[in-house]
Amino acid sequence: MKKSIGIIGGMGPEATADLFRKIIAATDATHDQDHLRIYIDDHPQIPDRIAPILAEAAGRVPDTPDPLPAMAESARKLESCGADLLAIACITAHYYLPRLRPLVQTPFIDMMEQTALAGAARFPGQKAGLLCSSATAKSGILPHALDAAGVAWLAAKPADQDTLSQLILDIKAQRNQDTLWQRFAPILQDMRQRGADYFILGCTELPILASYGEMPLPCLDATDILARAIVRACGYPLRTHSDNSQI
Amino acid sequence: MKKSIGIIGGMGPEATADLFRKIIAATDATHDQDHLRIYIDDHPQIPDRIAPILAEAAGRVPDTPDPLPAMAESARKLESCGADLLAIACITAHYYLPRLRPLVQTPFIDMMEQTALAGAARFPGQKAGLLCSSATAKSGILPHALDAAGVAWLAAKPADQDTLSQLILDIKAQRNQDTLWQRFAPILQDMRQRGADYFILGCTELPILASYGEMPLPCLDATDILARAIVRACGYPLRTHSDNSQI
Repeated sequence: MKKSIGIIGGMGPEATADLFRKIIAATDATHDQDHLRIYIDDHPQIPDRIAPILAEAAGRVPDTPDPLPAMAESARKLESCGADLLAIACITAHYYLPRLRPLVQTPFIDMMEQTALAGAARFPGQKAGLLCSSATAKSGILPHALDAAGVAWLAAKPADQDTLSQLILDIKAQRNQDTLWQRFAPILQDMRQRGADYFILGCTELPILASYGEMPLPCLDATDILARAIVRACGYPLRTHSDNSQI
Repeated sequence: MKKSIGIIGGMGPEATADLFRKIIAATDATHDQDHLRIYIDDHPQIPDRIAPILAEAAGRVPDTPDPLPAMAESARKLESCGADLLAIACITAHYYLPRLRPLVQTPFIDMMEQTALAGAARFPGQKAGLLCSSATAKSGILPHALDAAGVAWLAAKPADQDTLSQLILDIKAQRNQDTLWQRFAPILQDMRQRGADYFILGCTELPILASYGEMPLPCLDATDILARAIVRACGYPLRTHSDNSQI
């Protein structure tokens, strides 16, 4: 049976548009009518996730607004539109997935789990260089998913991790475009020298950044993996790729 | 007061993603939270619009499914999500806008009207080469809007108009990519020789096609015009452009 997908978006909007585009590109379609139905709530007013996640990772109670109620509001709207499945167009926001699941009836496709499974399947026995936000790294959400799937990985050096988070914010703000790649490239080289065999683009802003230059190792694009998982789960045929985003 | 937009999409999905991306790019934002809230119902199962529009243009009663009920279903879903304004991410589908308006409470931003007003404002006294689908041309919807705004225009030759419609279908199907531009370019040259001063990209698939080569005249991108009209109408600041898509 064909299913529809509901996407909680706006975290950020660019990443949501990127996921949308990748779902369309991943679908083997020749007419409009061959595509799946996609409900998107692009909801940028969801409060910042980074500060409260970092606070909890440091053992503190966050003193900033809780993003969960706004995420749940989006999930319920998508559900009432008739979405058969739900997804979140942001890796970092998956921190709240275990708290979100009990609040709605509709099942979620878990981007972290899908990314970890794709890493294990496509690069067996190889080591992933994990590129993600500091909130994703420090909260352990993606590292734990990789560990659970038996995927070996290495993190960016602490200073480089801070730069990565800044680059993600710059992509969101569409600023400092001319220095993005020159700040990104040395981080990639360092991880390669320390033994990374491939990169996991573990933040929905990073595929945008990766498109600005030549990545020195193969990449696992978490957004593309989620897009293809959505097409499959909704019962639509996948378009075959020739590039390395195929899983 | 800040407003949200609801977008009836899926006609086609690529054009809907293009509008989404252009709304984000048109918004002067530095944080996720500075962006407007966008509800999208990407609904590719809306029945084909071309056959029934061409039938009515020829004075026949269509013998294909009526797309109006599915468009109205999307409009009502977006309305129940809380959209303050509605838009349709397809010029051709605007044929049904006069029949759709009475079915919902929420006002629409009219892409055709916005495009005609932008033509009059940006290219006063100049002649537009109108690039659109055959359904848009033969039903007269965009020509009438241009006439009402006092915009002089010329159409593609009949054989070229058929090619334009085929190119639009090829874009939707992501096929024949290597010949798209070489079939498009002679149409542009012919309209230029017949006196076009600029082109109106009057179909939401055409900005995608126009990005494949060097357009020989300035262009009015109806998708970008709608995107900027949405940002303005929702009460958000516009990002200034340096390119010719600024209005």
